Amino acid sequence: MRRNTGVYRYKLKIAYDGSQYFGWQVQPGKRTIQGQLENAFFSFTGQHIKVHASGRTDQGVHAAGQVAHVDVPSRFSGQSIEKALNALLDNDIRILQVDRSCATFHAQKNAVSKEYRYFIWNNEVMPPFLRYYRTHIPQPLDVECMNQAARMLVGKKDFASFTANPNRKVETTVRHLSALSVKRKGHEVVIIARSDGFLYKMVRSIAGFLIRVGEGAILPLETQTILRTHLRTAKVQTAPPQGLFLWHVYF
Amino acid sequence: MRRNTGVYRYKLKIAYDGSQYFGWQVQPGKRTIQGQLENAFFSFTGQHIKVHASGRTDQGVHAAGQVAHVDVPSRFSGQSIEKALNALLDNDIRILQVDRSCATFHAQKNAVSKEYRYFIWNNEVMPPFLRYYRTHIPQPLDVECMNQAARMLVGKKDFASFTANPNRKVETTVRHLSALSVKRKGHEVVIIARSDGFLYKMVRSIAGFLIRVGEGAILPLETQTILRTHLRTAKVQTAPPQGLFLWHVYF
Repeated sequence: MRRNTGVYRYKLKIAYDGSQYFGWQVQPGKRTIQGQLENAFFSFTGQHIKVHASGRTDQGVHAAGQVAHVDVPSRFSGQSIEKALNALLDNDIRILQVDRSCATFHAQKNAVSKEYRYFIWNNEVMPPFLRYYRTHIPQPLDVECMNQAARMLVGKKDFASFTANPNRKVETTVRHLSALSVKRKGHEVVIIARSDGFLYKMVRSIAGFLIRVGEGAILPLETQTILRTHLRTAKVQTAPPQGLFLWHVYF
Repeated sequence: MRRNTGVYRYKLKIAYDGSQYFGWQVQPGKRTIQGQLENAFFSFTGQHIKVHASGRTDQGVHAAGQVAHVDVPSRFSGQSIEKALNALLDNDIRILQVDRSCATFHAQKNAVSKEYRYFIWNNEVMPPFLRYYRTHIPQPLDVECMNQAARMLVGKKDFASFTANPNRKVETTVRHLSALSVKRKGHEVVIIARSDGFLYKMVRSIAGFLIRVGEGAILPLETQTILRTHLRTAKVQTAPPQGLFLWHVYF
């Protein structure tokens, strides 16, 4: 699928531990995932290559299956790009797969939906090996109550109450949340959210809200009222970033 | 079980991420697990309290179930000691449980056997979230071959070839390895070793050896010869510490 410009497009699947990064997006003077990837591409090809992700992740948020596309001015095998980047990158960013894609493939525009998972360690003592990847809630969470509230959030709704909007202009705060569920496996509670588009800090706002529901501080029934107010209130708190993983991007 | 001295003995179950420590044992000017625990006890009780472990772990080695005993000059509930220490300690050391024990309980002398687990990530790319807790071996390991070699190491044998002995005087290098097996679960390979006593770096030496067997560099049959030489050779390498966990202490 060679284009006239002699540029080859590739699809990258990337995992990263966001603990040591100021999020995905390049910011002057700050260590970001995109910045590290573009540095690695520069070392590898000698060219400034922009890495386009399916979406940004915030400071401290992880990814198990971020997807991005790049245009590389020379033809390489996917595996040779993967090996070269992994050799250049710190081991908290890993390229899981690289495939040649058609020139029209776009990691953001072609993404049909994205799945985020928010992981909670719900027991008195947090195992030291999970401390960077789980949010610690010692008191027992009522997962059934959390699911009652979650079900009221599923569908096409105005999520103005569930976004941390720092003077961001968005055309609309209506989003279609296609799935939201809470599962327990032993001491682990995971919130799974799927949508074709999330608002700023929407998953962490929903997680923060569901945690309070699980603690019994908010009744599941109040979910409807909170949605209807279209206003962010103290009932909705942004849960900390270390529990959040961009889990999978569907195309 | 109050003793004449007014001292109360407790049994502690401890988990730690060894990445940031110079091992278990107190060393002047170095950050060690024992040192951090004794500092925490000092902050809590105002007394210098020695923490006796079932055994030392080396620099960079983790523990999921280390056991120790302490003598505390005042009577506390196990839970209040647990809570106080966890509040004082960094979150890479966690007290999992504290129980009052009889005054004769000794974490080292009463340990019947110890189980270590050595975790290998056996796939081309190491997930960033596991990088501190797995040893990365990209080429496929033949677990059946590893188990053939492992079976030859089980029993009461002279393990002189499987210890890194830095001028340590030990009475004997004979040890009874009661169990040694290798299991695969997806991309994870785990070596499980159980004994009433291990030599210095014995588990990591066995792991290093079994990895080379799994790679096909050493035939399982050579195990007998290597054992019989009673000499450490280049065939036995010490595997890196980050894959090793003191898993459980049996009493």
